[in-house]
Amino acid sequence: MKLMLETIKNIGELNMDAMEEAGHRVNNLVKPPGSLGRIEDLAIQLAGITGNVFTKVDNKAVIVMAADHGVYDEGVAPNPQIITAIQTNNMAKGVTGVCAFAKQAGAKVIVVDVGVKNEVNYNGVINKKIRSGTSNMTQGPAMTREEAVRSIEIGIEITNEEIMKGANCIAIGEMGISNTTASSAIISVLGDCNPHDVVGIGAGLPVDKLHHKAEVIRRAINKNHPDANDPVDVLSKVGGFEIGGMVGTILAAAAQRKPIVIDGFISYAAALLAVALEPKIKSFIFVSHMSAEKGGVKALQLLGLDPLLNLGLRLGEGSGAVLAFNLLEAATYMVNEMVTLEESGIVL
Amino acid sequence: MKLMLETIKNIGELNMDAMEEAGHRVNNLVKPPGSLGRIEDLAIQLAGITGNVFTKVDNKAVIVMAADHGVYDEGVAPNPQIITAIQTNNMAKGVTGVCAFAKQAGAKVIVVDVGVKNEVNYNGVINKKIRSGTSNMTQGPAMTREEAVRSIEIGIEITNEEIMKGANCIAIGEMGISNTTASSAIISVLGDCNPHDVVGIGAGLPVDKLHHKAEVIRRAINKNHPDANDPVDVLSKVGGFEIGGMVGTILAAAAQRKPIVIDGFISYAAALLAVALEPKIKSFIFVSHMSAEKGGVKALQLLGLDPLLNLGLRLGEGSGAVLAFNLLEAATYMVNEMVTLEESGIVL
Repeated sequence: MKLMLETIKNIGELNMDAMEEAGHRVNNLVKPPGSLGRIEDLAIQLAGITGNVFTKVDNKAVIVMAADHGVYDEGVAPNPQIITAIQTNNMAKGVTGVCAFAKQAGAKVIVVDVGVKNEVNYNGVINKKIRSGTSNMTQGPAMTREEAVRSIEIGIEITNEEIMKGANCIAIGEMGISNTTASSAIISVLGDCNPHDVVGIGAGLPVDKLHHKAEVIRRAINKNHPDANDPVDVLSKVGGFEIGGMVGTILAAAAQRKPIVIDGFISYAAALLAVALEPKIKSFIFVSHMSAEKGGVKALQLLGLDPLLNLGLRLGEGSGAVLAFNLLEAATYMVNEMVTLEESGIVL
Repeated sequence: MKLMLETIKNIGELNMDAMEEAGHRVNNLVKPPGSLGRIEDLAIQLAGITGNVFTKVDNKAVIVMAADHGVYDEGVAPNPQIITAIQTNNMAKGVTGVCAFAKQAGAKVIVVDVGVKNEVNYNGVINKKIRSGTSNMTQGPAMTREEAVRSIEIGIEITNEEIMKGANCIAIGEMGISNTTASSAIISVLGDCNPHDVVGIGAGLPVDKLHHKAEVIRRAINKNHPDANDPVDVLSKVGGFEIGGMVGTILAAAAQRKPIVIDGFISYAAALLAVALEPKIKSFIFVSHMSAEKGGVKALQLLGLDPLLNLGLRLGEGSGAVLAFNLLEAATYMVNEMVTLEESGIVL
């Protein structure tokens, strides 16, 4: 609890002086003002985060949290639960979607077991297992409040360690069969919306089972009465260990003034919890892409942030976040490699 | 003329067998089918272009064509014509927008003077100057038909050389004060639309001058009667040397079965001309981004292709195309680095 509270306390505002200086430089680069659109916005936001106009994001890490969900027993996912363990191992082997994109983007993949049910080979996976999956949230809380805090603090610890090793840009990712159900529940509670308006097919649930999935969420909410004003309560009652881990990563990266790139639907839920814990966090977040999961639009409306990419992605793992690393890095190259009109001898 | 015609003759269809094989592999990778959205489409299209499921786009080049425009004299651009020469030199120095993004994407920048009016320092710029800018198209054709063919063949020659040196993915870019005017004219002719519906602010023309810009284009079209069914006639009468060069690059890359990434508004005009010369070319083109220039939507409707990025870019130079290199490369990493369910031992 102490680590979480201290981390939150360390989260500050964007550095307005650095943003003004960056804005001035960006406007004076050898190009028509505004002609690099959102890449210019990224550069200015990065300056606000790091306090440095000439920011670099050349040491990128995606932290992938993996865990299972007791609510799986309600028949909300199309794939067997063993897939969580298999894919967690595959992450360490470097053969999943996020690994492929991370290689392209020159990013490191950190894989953490925060609560996978089945056997994980810890050669390359960090073992922080809280327990073998959450409890079935239709029967009671997914986890205890202590476990929720623990999951967040695992995320903080892992992230602090990566930043200490030199990471200067952090993405979040996840693996967990049934975690679109937990995420939809979190979004429904925080957004005070009907689960039927939030649930989507996740990894490929038949459309005729969507009603059932929404009803499972409704039952879990009715059973546990999560308090929308208490993000840790929401996480503990209808969340997941990996979602807690992602919240922790966001908190730690913001506290250390590193840009955070979030991924798809599950990470929207984690970001909403993080922002509910500390609204200042929002300024440190970049939304990589518009998730193709149905509730994605609603979740981003609640978050109040615009995605950078819209490519119909719905894999998760951090795959979309890693794709967007390139855009953030391009923004830093714009500032660092382009010259100003003045430096170029152009007088308009 | 012979080089152009032979190049066009060599442009074939996509390789359907390779696309089917790629589609099969993509569907069987360790992810829910379809969950990587357009990245999956890119991988399949790349296989169709190269004939190889395991395509690589690790040797990327952006070919930047620079030239001036006689129509500048009509007051259609906010910046002095000398900027074309200055920025052409800046490209060779590596300090412009496309250069910055090319460094991020690991791409080579090839800069070609096809008709810059003012002095260019040829240290790093390829000298293929046809003459010092086109003629003022409101007074007569921008160039002769021979010059139009020459501009296309310069693009073919330069591109063939880069492919011979190993380039396996080609982007087009440009520099040329007033070239949104020429591009708007081309799009108006090929799309049979009113120039007033196509013209935009380009590099920052005051909005109250847009009517004038459209009228200049209308006058040029009325003066020259470009034949919409003859792309070389359109290029010669209302085009530009750099636009011809870009057409040539597209033709050469397609003929050699290399993916072509097009940039913004100017490159839409070049792509429309190239597709008019040979409709099969369309399958070889990737539209990097939605240009923020007003006529961009119209041009892409005519082209019938969807952009990958939408970031409010309107710089040109090839800057947006280079940003999209990362997405094409990510698609190749997906195919080359991810394993299939079978390879991973997953039986669903």
